[in-house]
Amino acid sequence: MAKGEATRQAILARAFEVANVVGVSGLTIGRLAETTGLSKSGLFAHFGSKEALEVAVVEEAARQFVQDVMVPALRQPRGEPRVKALFERWLAWGDRPGGCFFVGASAELDDRPGPPRDALVQASKDWVDALATAARIAVLERHFRDDLDPEQFAFELYGIMMASHTFGRFLRQPDARARTRGAFDRLLADARTRHR
Amino acid sequence: MAKGEATRQAILARAFEVANVVGVSGLTIGRLAETTGLSKSGLFAHFGSKEALEVAVVEEAARQFVQDVMVPALRQPRGEPRVKALFERWLAWGDRPGGCFFVGASAELDDRPGPPRDALVQASKDWVDALATAARIAVLERHFRDDLDPEQFAFELYGIMMASHTFGRFLRQPDARARTRGAFDRLLADARTRHR
Repeated sequence: MAKGEATRQAILARAFEVANVVGVSGLTIGRLAETTGLSKSGLFAHFGSKEALEVAVVEEAARQFVQDVMVPALRQPRGEPRVKALFERWLAWGDRPGGCFFVGASAELDDRPGPPRDALVQASKDWVDALATAARIAVLERHFRDDLDPEQFAFELYGIMMASHTFGRFLRQPDARARTRGAFDRLLADARTRHR
Repeated sequence: MAKGEATRQAILARAFEVANVVGVSGLTIGRLAETTGLSKSGLFAHFGSKEALEVAVVEEAARQFVQDVMVPALRQPRGEPRVKALFERWLAWGDRPGGCFFVGASAELDDRPGPPRDALVQASKDWVDALATAARIAVLERHFRDDLDPEQFAFELYGIMMASHTFGRFLRQPDARARTRGAFDRLLADARTRHR
């Protein structure tokens, strides 16, 4: 990795941590200068604009998500064990300070069309696709029933995680984690059982 | 209703419409003055502060939610018909311009402790309680199995609605509505079936 690239990567890792707490919009070049000790002009040289910085942070979040959630799960056996590993890693991802980056950023960028929103939509779709693929493999492995709709499974798992975030972080319900696991268990049980 | 109260109510109805699109934080006294044609000083006289205005808008959103979603559903027969009516009305609530007020406001206020966040948490808990109560009644009516956990049902229904919002409004998936109905049908089917 060239020195310029290594510096950029180090800045992005820090930028992601900051954005995870203050939000994508709250991450200004000035704030990033403060937290990294680099000059504003140096940061502008790396990113060019606030918007380009936002896109880079979303892509960095996606990169870390792949590394922290998807890569370890892919080391698990194909089928249900891998689906469960994705679920556990995803839960752990949302436990970091600031909660899940993607939940906060989606709400922030929802009504702001442009490249940062596009990058976030792409990352979210990639994740939904990865969940559906894991479910499809579990069908092939005969862990899940063969009439399971993998996209429907991904949609419902996504909803469980969003409820987990809302009940845990926003409503601060002490039983949010147990409810999340209960919902996931029910989703799995239904995915295993043959219908009709 | 006294004239002052009627004026306040008219202002709040307008404030809610604006906040539903620009967010709770984006609703300033200045913006509200523009949109209502009232003076800033007059609006300060009604609300006292930006924070008090935010609390009032959250309470107005909760009042309209009760009126638009809960009251019509309560006219349906107890049990599953009422649960279905809550679901349908809730879907329609999220279809207004700006989407569901509560989804946007939760993300905005999540990390901002204070009276507006407290009001929003209260409104959300009231709604979760109403969903659990409707499920509990469906158990009593023998539409749902008697070992159903009504709070778990409410948690999962909440998740389905959040996924609906994300897949529909944020990811703009054309099949989001069909996925939402599919997930609700599966939740209902599981609620009806006796386990073990």
